[in-house]
Amino acid sequence: MAGSSFGNIFRISTWGESHGKAIGVVVDGCPAGIELNEEIIQAYLDRRKPGQNRFSTQRAEGDKVEILSGVFEGETTGTPISMIVHNKDQHSKDYSEIASYYRPGHADFTFDAKYGFRDYRGGGRSSGRETIGRVAAGAIAMTALKSMGIEVTAYTAQIGNVKCDREKIEKVNILKSPIYMPDLEASERAMEALDFSRAEMDSMGGIVDCVITGVPAGVGEPVFDKLDATLAKAVMSIGAVKGVQIGSGFEVASKRGSENNDEFTGESQSENSAFKISKFFDEDGELISNIKSTNHAGGILGGISDSDPILVSAAFKPTPSIAKTQSTINKKGEQIDINIKGRHDPVIVPRAVVVVESMAAITVFDLLLSSMTSRMDKIKEFFGR
Amino acid sequence: MAGSSFGNIFRISTWGESHGKAIGVVVDGCPAGIELNEEIIQAYLDRRKPGQNRFSTQRAEGDKVEILSGVFEGETTGTPISMIVHNKDQHSKDYSEIASYYRPGHADFTFDAKYGFRDYRGGGRSSGRETIGRVAAGAIAMTALKSMGIEVTAYTAQIGNVKCDREKIEKVNILKSPIYMPDLEASERAMEALDFSRAEMDSMGGIVDCVITGVPAGVGEPVFDKLDATLAKAVMSIGAVKGVQIGSGFEVASKRGSENNDEFTGESQSENSAFKISKFFDEDGELISNIKSTNHAGGILGGISDSDPILVSAAFKPTPSIAKTQSTINKKGEQIDINIKGRHDPVIVPRAVVVVESMAAITVFDLLLSSMTSRMDKIKEFFGR
Amino acid sequence: MAGSSFGNIFRISTWGESHGKAIGVVVDGCPAGIELNEEIIQAYLDRRKPGQNRFSTQRAEGDKVEILSGVFEGETTGTPISMIVHNKDQHSKDYSEIASYYRPGHADFTFDAKYGFRDYRGGGRSSGRETIGRVAAGAIAMTALKSMGIEVTAYTAQIGNVKCDREKIEKVNILKSPIYMPDLEASERAMEALDFSRAEMDSMGGIVDCVITGVPAGVGEPVFDKLDATLAKAVMSIGAVKGVQIGSGFEVASKRGSENNDEFTGESQSENSAFKISKFFDEDGELISNIKSTNHAGGILGGISDSDPILVSAAFKPTPSIAKTQSTINKKGEQIDINIKGRHDPVIVPRAVVVVESMAAITVFDLLLSSMTSRMDKIKEFFGR
Amino acid sequence: MAGSSFGNIFRISTWGESHGKAIGVVVDGCPAGIELNEEIIQAYLDRRKPGQNRFSTQRAEGDKVEILSGVFEGETTGTPISMIVHNKDQHSKDYSEIASYYRPGHADFTFDAKYGFRDYRGGGRSSGRETIGRVAAGAIAMTALKSMGIEVTAYTAQIGNVKCDREKIEKVNILKSPIYMPDLEASERAMEALDFSRAEMDSMGGIVDCVITGVPAGVGEPVFDKLDATLAKAVMSIGAVKGVQIGSGFEVASKRGSENNDEFTGESQSENSAFKISKFFDEDGELISNIKSTNHAGGILGGISDSDPILVSAAFKPTPSIAKTQSTINKKGEQIDINIKGRHDPVIVPRAVVVVESMAAITVFDLLLSSMTSRMDKIKEFFGR
Repeated sequence: MAGSSFGNIFRISTWGESHGKAIGVVVDGCPAGIELNEEIIQAYLDRRKPGQNRFSTQRAEGDKVEILSGVFEGETTGTPISMIVHNKDQHSKDYSEIASYYRPGHADFTFDAKYGFRDYRGGGRSSGRETIGRVAAGAIAMTALKSMGIEVTAYTAQIGNVKCDREKIEKVNILKSPIYMPDLEASERAMEALDFSRAEMDSMGGIVDCVITGVPAGVGEPVFDKLDATLAKAVMSIGAVKGVQIGSGFEVASKRGSENNDEFTGESQSENSAFKISKFFDEDGELISNIKSTNHAGGILGGISDSDPILVSAAFKPTPSIAKTQSTINKKGEQIDINIKGRHDPVIVPRAVVVVESMAAITVFDLLLSSMTSRMDKIKEFFGR
Repeated sequence: MAGSSFGNIFRISTWGESHGKAIGVVVDGCPAGIELNEEIIQAYLDRRKPGQNRFSTQRAEGDKVEILSGVFEGETTGTPISMIVHNKDQHSKDYSEIASYYRPGHADFTFDAKYGFRDYRGGGRSSGRETIGRVAAGAIAMTALKSMGIEVTAYTAQIGNVKCDREKIEKVNILKSPIYMPDLEASERAMEALDFSRAEMDSMGGIVDCVITGVPAGVGEPVFDKLDATLAKAVMSIGAVKGVQIGSGFEVASKRGSENNDEFTGESQSENSAFKISKFFDEDGELISNIKSTNHAGGILGGISDSDPILVSAAFKPTPSIAKTQSTINKKGEQIDINIKGRHDPVIVPRAVVVVESMAAITVFDLLLSSMTSRMDKIKEFFGR
Repeated sequence: MAGSSFGNIFRISTWGESHGKAIGVVVDGCPAGIELNEEIIQAYLDRRKPGQNRFSTQRAEGDKVEILSGVFEGETTGTPISMIVHNKDQHSKDYSEIASYYRPGHADFTFDAKYGFRDYRGGGRSSGRETIGRVAAGAIAMTALKSMGIEVTAYTAQIGNVKCDREKIEKVNILKSPIYMPDLEASERAMEALDFSRAEMDSMGGIVDCVITGVPAGVGEPVFDKLDATLAKAVMSIGAVKGVQIGSGFEVASKRGSENNDEFTGESQSENSAFKISKFFDEDGELISNIKSTNHAGGILGGISDSDPILVSAAFKPTPSIAKTQSTINKKGEQIDINIKGRHDPVIVPRAVVVVESMAAITVFDLLLSSMTSRMDKIKEFFGR
Repeated sequence: MAGSSFGNIFRISTWGESHGKAIGVVVDGCPAGIELNEEIIQAYLDRRKPGQNRFSTQRAEGDKVEILSGVFEGETTGTPISMIVHNKDQHSKDYSEIASYYRPGHADFTFDAKYGFRDYRGGGRSSGRETIGRVAAGAIAMTALKSMGIEVTAYTAQIGNVKCDREKIEKVNILKSPIYMPDLEASERAMEALDFSRAEMDSMGGIVDCVITGVPAGVGEPVFDKLDATLAKAVMSIGAVKGVQIGSGFEVASKRGSENNDEFTGESQSENSAFKISKFFDEDGELISNIKSTNHAGGILGGISDSDPILVSAAFKPTPSIAKTQSTINKKGEQIDINIKGRHDPVIVPRAVVVVESMAAITVFDLLLSSMTSRMDKIKEFFGR
């Protein structure tokens, strides 16, 4: 069944295999009149590009995006926006061997089980390159949201056991860290740990946090299409993610109601509905809030935004492709030892930051558009009736 | 926008407010020929019914389900199955006061922001009673899955700081614990902690684990409709859930690739594709596996089932309705102190166990049906062409 | 697969069999703040009720609707509206015989082929009673549209060979005709023909026209979700419909471009965007227009409304249940002669008028809501950003 | 809102403007293991290509398709199939003038009303070139269906007032007629009429018939996703279509039940479930049937296929772009006279034949896949449980 589309109104459909001719995305339902060009998209794609630092694969993927439709005279037209990135630098030979066996931690076995065979070159459709389409589409959502005063900001919160101190996190530092870790001390320690791990032919995992500010209250549909539920799907659908949480997340399990409840404080909602902030956490490391005493809820109540900053966190597993010898089975079911060749990221997390940002932006923009039809009085006003 | 439906092929649509005339669900796309009657559904509903023990609200909700359509001569007909539970014992007066203010941790504020007003009686649509429809629908999915050798089993894994020891978990013990906690020692300690919390007019949170066995390899659609992503949405859409994880979940962030990768072991997949097991974890507390050396992946690779047991965990926040005095704002934006009256659960988790089970069953059955169209050779065989 | 839902934003899901306990519909995605009560719905249901005149079945179906959710203090709340009509006066015995054979023109054979068995009582799910849910949902769409100056009006345009003269059609006459035929002379002749057909134990077909006025320009989504394409599906999904056309419809096949093209005349669009009219056709029988010299297009260009009156027509086959002896096969494949008992409509068309109206209203309201997200400048304005 | 996708399981999303860089389609949910290459697709595209005869535009559109993803080693992989056709020979200057006014019969006015501006070059998104994506996707559906013994065949049934005699229609003659009109006498007369019309700087309309044979009984979902309703949407979504009918279509309006009902004859369904036939109509011009005495129903009962040949007909309006002087308004609302330049088809119908075929094939294949989940016993058998 079709599974390569996401979103209801602002709807993206990605396509492409890592070693096919190209990778791309079609964005349907994008409103007309958003300023758009290839430079805007490219800036986001460059943040997921490999080869940015010593911790990402040294493949020289050019990843130049081309807009094929849906933009006219510098603006979106309301019709589908098709974007393409041609695949280059394909060392397909590196992968010929893996056709015969199932790499641990990869989707080789399950794709064969599902489809009877697979495009084994570089992971095919299950490759991380699939996220190129997500980021290109996310760039459009992000551009639209920004024009409304809504900011979506992701960063590396943890690599292995090295965590950012939340009170030290400053937005301006994200891009200062080669691994997008805005507590710059933690960033240094994480890079040392990564050097160590790589030397041992191993890989590391981590956590990406994403904060969304300026979302008006009322975004998210009750019951199944809640903002948090949709964010959970959006983020869990990224290749290596094994956990997602909102606000205080798993910590709530051990809290009392009196500790976890956020009391409403009566601050004017309108003043903070669209705001740019340099820090997301206060001096106690608590997520900031404008309308509540605390923000354990992470800006979402009953699945609907409350106008406070939204926090979503995602746990990424360590890159499954490691140089160390591993045991597995081949297609005949025989036990074999393998050494995965090719150039692989010793950690996925830094390159995944912009992917999380993209999925969050797509989700928020789609549900923001959905929320326009929730009140009859506003609908009549919209049509001047 | 419509947000009360879930699933693509096996599609459920819930409706109803906690103090309206009734609560219900329509299940569309259910295959014909499943044995079904009201007793089967009722058995599941009884597990979420309040008043089962001292830790759930003492409201005497009868919650008797009636099947209105889609079943003929004891079998599903393939047409929509409409199920209804009439609301009784509605102390609507208890709620008249809350119309004027916003309870902390509840959706009062966000519903008003979204819709301009709300059915304030007992939480209205955002009440936990909405899950009645999920459980009634889940009972059908569960019945269908069981007939195929697929078992979905949820239980209380943690209440506050009291956690089950995984190696002590036995399936047979789940129903022996009044709070569905299959490590019976932990269950005792958790009940003590709940007594203590209630005495302090407070509430507690916890974690529900759900294990799914017997799912054939190949279930889940690549990219956005991955099995894990869809489970994440399914479970995060339950009222008080703030985090979801698959397999090792957030622990993977601090693991090395060599630790986290599960090596394929060459065991025959067919033998274990449908199996009933009494324990889900081995003597080391590790999730069991039949085809891999370990099962950190939780039975899902690349978003597709690998035939091993699937583990999904959900963090529930403490019940927001507490008897303790709290501060909040009223509709005029004035700061006020409130004491929430009415009968409320000191902990949501035990009653939520069957809700998690239901959402997992609906997700797995829907994606199982989806997976039937993934191979042309099997399609031809199906139609005898 | 689920097939009982229609609409994307304003989404209806019908359920129920003709001789089950009840028939109903859930409307999800209905905006909050529409005045609604059971009387409003009932007025529409009464127009499809049997026993209104001598040309409809004399079964005394009460068909009293009950609203179970989604309405609070006389207004829609934005949450799902569940409506139910209990089945009464079920002469199920009349139908026991038809379990064993396949009635010509009915869905008996195809339901058995699809599901392996069927609820044979009165047609089960394929009964015309299924349209109760459509009309109840349509009443809500109609109420919302009316409040915006949009009118949806259907009527009987043809019964057998008796056609309305278009220039004689007056809106005010529709309800004056027992068969909803607004050319009252034609109405008389059609009733005579129906008497004649009934005397011969036979049935008749006909055509329903539906005119929609006041739709703003811009409603309908390019390519597949065009307004005309969606109307076609909406109307063709009604049981006995075998053809659908827009504007001049099949007549365009034999026209020249110079005849069929409607020239734009430069009239102000704003003046006529919401207007009530008493006649839909001019003295030449041509569909009226405010912005074009003619309106062969039927108010839709490129699948998008142009603000002119929209005309959709549907051809209904004669009622397949006739008293005359017919030949068919039984489940064993043996040829048999049958005489269908029970009380059946000698013509479906008059009762179908409100069904066509309902499906048209649901389609237009849903696509009107969709059209709110087509321009970024209007989105920003909506959110005050 | 997104409107460029069609189908639920086999889902196509088209993109592209007539004078943009390229036109394309993404097919998601296509089963793995279908033999596919560019030659197969190209053969279908060549049938809609302009310049095939003197009645289609003389633009030399190369329209060479390239498959970018989803095919590996000559077979579909189950992942999205992205196909692209680069636009060439764009005389964009020809269209610069039309930016300022609204062409009669075109979507210029409605696109401006909806989006605030439009890509005016050659009709942009509303151009007939958009159907390239439909045909490329349809070619895949057709290939899959053929491998199952299902044939989809469309042809020109009428041009202006020239109609095929149904009893003279032979499948083998379709390609012998330059305008795909299988009654070769009628074809000659139609071509004369077209010459005449073109000489007068005018254009003509017509009717396309499409017959589908070999569909097993049971395809189509009750209520809204009926096979006929979905076909109606599929076909009405093609640019110039103004009417759609199934089987006897609009003729049923004037028939008696006893005339229109098709009596079941007890022929074995299995024998004819997949069959190739050279003629679709018998010597009386009646649609053939294997299981009924007649086939006025057009192979569909209650929205579900009955295994008999399916007939769907579509009325196409005359090409709106004509060389004759026409009156219209410009953007300022001023009345002006225009002469449309550029090269345009004097009739759309022949090039639309393969488009109707494509939409029908996509619909049937999608609903065929859907029908696999309608019975629990067959589901268990499928999974060997």
